[in-house]
Amino acid sequence: SQEFSFDEHSHRRFNPLIDSWVLCSPHRTKRPWQGQQEIVEYESKPEYDPKCYLCPGNLRAQGKKNPNYSDTFIFINDFAALKVEQPQLHLEDSNDKFASLLKAESVRGECKVICFSPKHNITIAEMSEEVVVHVIQSWIKVYQSAIAVPHINYVQIFENKGSIMGCSNPHPHCQVWSTESIPEEPRKEMVSMTKYYEKNNSCMLCDYVQLETTKLVDKPRVVCENDSFVCVTPYWAVWPYETMVIAKFHFTSLGEMDEKVENGKKRQCDLANIIVRITCRYDNVFKCSFPYSMGIHQAPADGGDHSHDSHFHLHFYPPLLRSPTVKKFLVGYELLAEPQRDLTPEHAASTLKQCSEIHYKHEKV
Amino acid sequence: SQEFSFDEHSHRRFNPLIDSWVLCSPHRTKRPWQGQQEIVEYESKPEYDPKCYLCPGNLRAQGKKNPNYSDTFIFINDFAALKVEQPQLHLEDSNDKFASLLKAESVRGECKVICFSPKHNITIAEMSEEVVVHVIQSWIKVYQSAIAVPHINYVQIFENKGSIMGCSNPHPHCQVWSTESIPEEPRKEMVSMTKYYEKNNSCMLCDYVQLETTKLVDKPRVVCENDSFVCVTPYWAVWPYETMVIAKFHFTSLGEMDEKVENGKKRQCDLANIIVRITCRYDNVFKCSFPYSMGIHQAPADGGDHSHDSHFHLHFYPPLLRSPTVKKFLVGYELLAEPQRDLTPEHAASTLKQCSEIHYKHEKV
Ligand SMILES: O=P(O)(O)O[C@H]1O[C@H](CO)[C@@H](O)[C@H](O)[C@H]1O
Ligand SMILES: O=P(O)(O)O[C@H]1O[C@H](CO)[C@@H](O)[C@H](O)[C@H]1O
Repeated sequence: SQEFSFDEHSHRRFNPLIDSWVLCSPHRTKRPWQGQQEIVEYESKPEYDPKCYLCPGNLRAQGKKNPNYSDTFIFINDFAALKVEQPQLHLEDSNDKFASLLKAESVRGECKVICFSPKHNITIAEMSEEVVVHVIQSWIKVYQSAIAVPHINYVQIFENKGSIMGCSNPHPHCQVWSTESIPEEPRKEMVSMTKYYEKNNSCMLCDYVQLETTKLVDKPRVVCENDSFVCVTPYWAVWPYETMVIAKFHFTSLGEMDEKVENGKKRQCDLANIIVRITCRYDNVFKCSFPYSMGIHQAPADGGDHSHDSHFHLHFYPPLLRSPTVKKFLVGYELLAEPQRDLTPEHAASTLKQCSEIHYKHEKV
Repeated sequence: SQEFSFDEHSHRRFNPLIDSWVLCSPHRTKRPWQGQQEIVEYESKPEYDPKCYLCPGNLRAQGKKNPNYSDTFIFINDFAALKVEQPQLHLEDSNDKFASLLKAESVRGECKVICFSPKHNITIAEMSEEVVVHVIQSWIKVYQSAIAVPHINYVQIFENKGSIMGCSNPHPHCQVWSTESIPEEPRKEMVSMTKYYEKNNSCMLCDYVQLETTKLVDKPRVVCENDSFVCVTPYWAVWPYETMVIAKFHFTSLGEMDEKVENGKKRQCDLANIIVRITCRYDNVFKCSFPYSMGIHQAPADGGDHSHDSHFHLHFYPPLLRSPTVKKFLVGYELLAEPQRDLTPEHAASTLKQCSEIHYKHEKV
C-alpha cells in the first residue's frame, strides 16, 4: 500500500506556540480559481503626494499639520482605538453563572503611528538597511515611552501593508497599540511557553531555532539567517507564505535587545538586515508589492519576570496564494472549524529561498 | 469624574465559549475610511447561467455533468481538501522536546457541496421558508451519511456567501467538510462548555439563551426569535454584525434535532424561519446582498457522550461595517494581538432589529 506523504496527503500540524492545529491539504493547489481577483496597482506613485495625510508638511484628517520630517515621524493616531485616560470599569469576580456570561473590563492605552520615511512611494522591501535601522530605533523609542506609562503593560507594534490587508494609506508606516491588558495572542504564547519551560527546562523558541538551524538536513524551512536572527516558515504556518523571524539569542523585548551586546547596534543592524531580506524575497515571489500584516511579539512590561515565557520574534502574515491577484481566503471552514492551507510550509520555504534578495525593481536586465 | 460608558469607552469583553477576549472601541466608528472599497454587483443575474458549474445540466470543472435537478443537489467536491481514503500517519507521543515541536497527524474526511436551489440568482435571504426546509433536510441527509463512515467524527456544514468571503460561485450553495479529527473551534467550545457544566451543573448555552431572552429589560441583543431558536448578537461578538442562532431547547446535533418533538418537522421549520429572517435583515441593513460565512456547531459523532459539552447553534460572520463597499478588516492588531471591533454588539442588534423582515427587493413602493 501507498506510504503517507506530507506533499500529497491531508494532515494536521500542531502549533505549540498557541496550542492549536492547522489542516494542510497539499493536493488542493490544483484547484482552479474562479473567485475574487484582487486589484494590483502597478502604476508608480510619486515620491510626494499632496493628498496623502502622512506625507511631510501635509494636513491630516483632523486638521493637524505634519512637520517637514526627513527621517521617521511618530504621532498619536487621530482615530485611536485606545485612550491613555478614560473612566474605568473593573472586572468583578462573581459566582453568579449569569454574570460570568457578561464579563467586561475597561482598557486604557495609546495608539501611535510611525511613518518609516518621508518618501510616499517606498516600502521596507526597497529600503536600505541603514534606513530600516532608523525604523527599528523609532520602535525602541515608542516602546520605551509607552512602558514608562504606569498602566501600560503591553506594546504591540504592527504593520498592515497593502490595501488587501486593510491598510488605508500606501505611505510606508506602522502602528503601535499599547495597552493596559495583555492581548490574547501574546498571552496564549506565554501560557504555552511556560508549560514548555516547566516540562523541558528550556525556552521553546530557543529550542525551535536550534532545531530548524542545526538539526535537520537541508534546513527545509529556513529562508534566510544572520548572526542574530533566523527567518523560517514555521512547521505550523497558516498563511501561504507565513514566516517568523526569531532571535537566535534569548532576549525578550525591544528594551533588552541591545543589552549585553558588545557592539550596541549589532542586533538592530541584524534585525534590519533580516527584515529587508525577507520583505524583498516576498516582493520577488510574484514580482509585485507583496501585502502582509506583520508584528513583533515580546514580553509584557508589567513588572513580572518574563525570562521564561517570552522570546523576541516577529510574525509575517502575507495573504497571497497563487499570484498578485489571488489570495488565500481564511473564511467558512477556517473561521468555524480550523485554519486550512493548500501548500506545505516546506514548499513555501523552497519558493522563498529561490527568490533573489535583489528587489525585482532594482535588477539589472 | 465621568462615568464609564459601554457606548463611548474602550473595553474588552470575554467570550466564554472559546475562553478569549475581544477589544471594543465604540468611539472609533467616527474614523473616515480611505482604504479598499469592495466591489458590489448590482446587475441582476439570470436564473440559469450556461457558464456556471453549479447550474442544472452544466459541466463542472473536472468534466462531470450536473443532473437536471429541481430541488437541492448534493455532490462530492471536485477539489476536496479531504479524502475518505488515504495513507495514514499516526501521532506519536514522544518525550523528546524537539519531536514535540514537529507534531503532525493524517486526516481522512469527505468534502461535499450542496446546491440550495436550481436557480442561479437567488440567496437564502430571498427564499421561502419551505425551500429552506429542503436545504435543512439536505444538511441532515449529508450529516447522517457522513457519520455512518466509521472514521468520520465531526461534520462541519458552512456557507461562504459573496466574493468578499472567498466564495468562487454565486450559485447558492454550501459545503460540508467531515473529518476524522475534531476541529479546533468546536473543540475549544467543548472544553469551555465542559468547565462551565462542571462548575454550574447546567449547559452554558441553555443559560445564555435564558439570560438573553428572559433576564434583561428590552433584550438588548436579541434580534429575533421563534419557538425553537433565538438569534442574538453575542455579548462577545467580533464581526460588526455577527450573530448566533441558538436552539432554545437543549439538543446537540442535526441528528437529534427532531427527536422527542411531537410534530416531527417543527424544528426544521423553525430553523428555516429564523435563518430566512436573519439573512433577510442582513440584506436590508445596507440594501445589498450581505456577504457572510456561516456554519453549524454541533456535537461530534465519535461515540462519546456530548450531552453536556455541545449545544446546537449557528454562527454568522458577516464582514461589512459601514456600507456595501466598506468591510471590517481583521488584520494587523487582530491577527497579532486581539480581535478589535468598532461598534458595540448592542448597537448592531438595534440596527438589525430596525430592519424589516421583508426583503428590500420584494418591498412594495
Ligand atoms: O472551496 P472553495 O469555496 O473554493 O474555497 C473557499 O472556502 C474554503 C473553506 O472555507 C477556503 O479554504 C478557501 O480559501 C475559500 O476560497
Ligand atoms: O488603523 P487603520 O490602519 O485605519 O485600520 C486597520 O488596522 C486596524 C488594526 O489592525 C484594524 O482594526 C482596521 O480594521 C484596519 O482597517
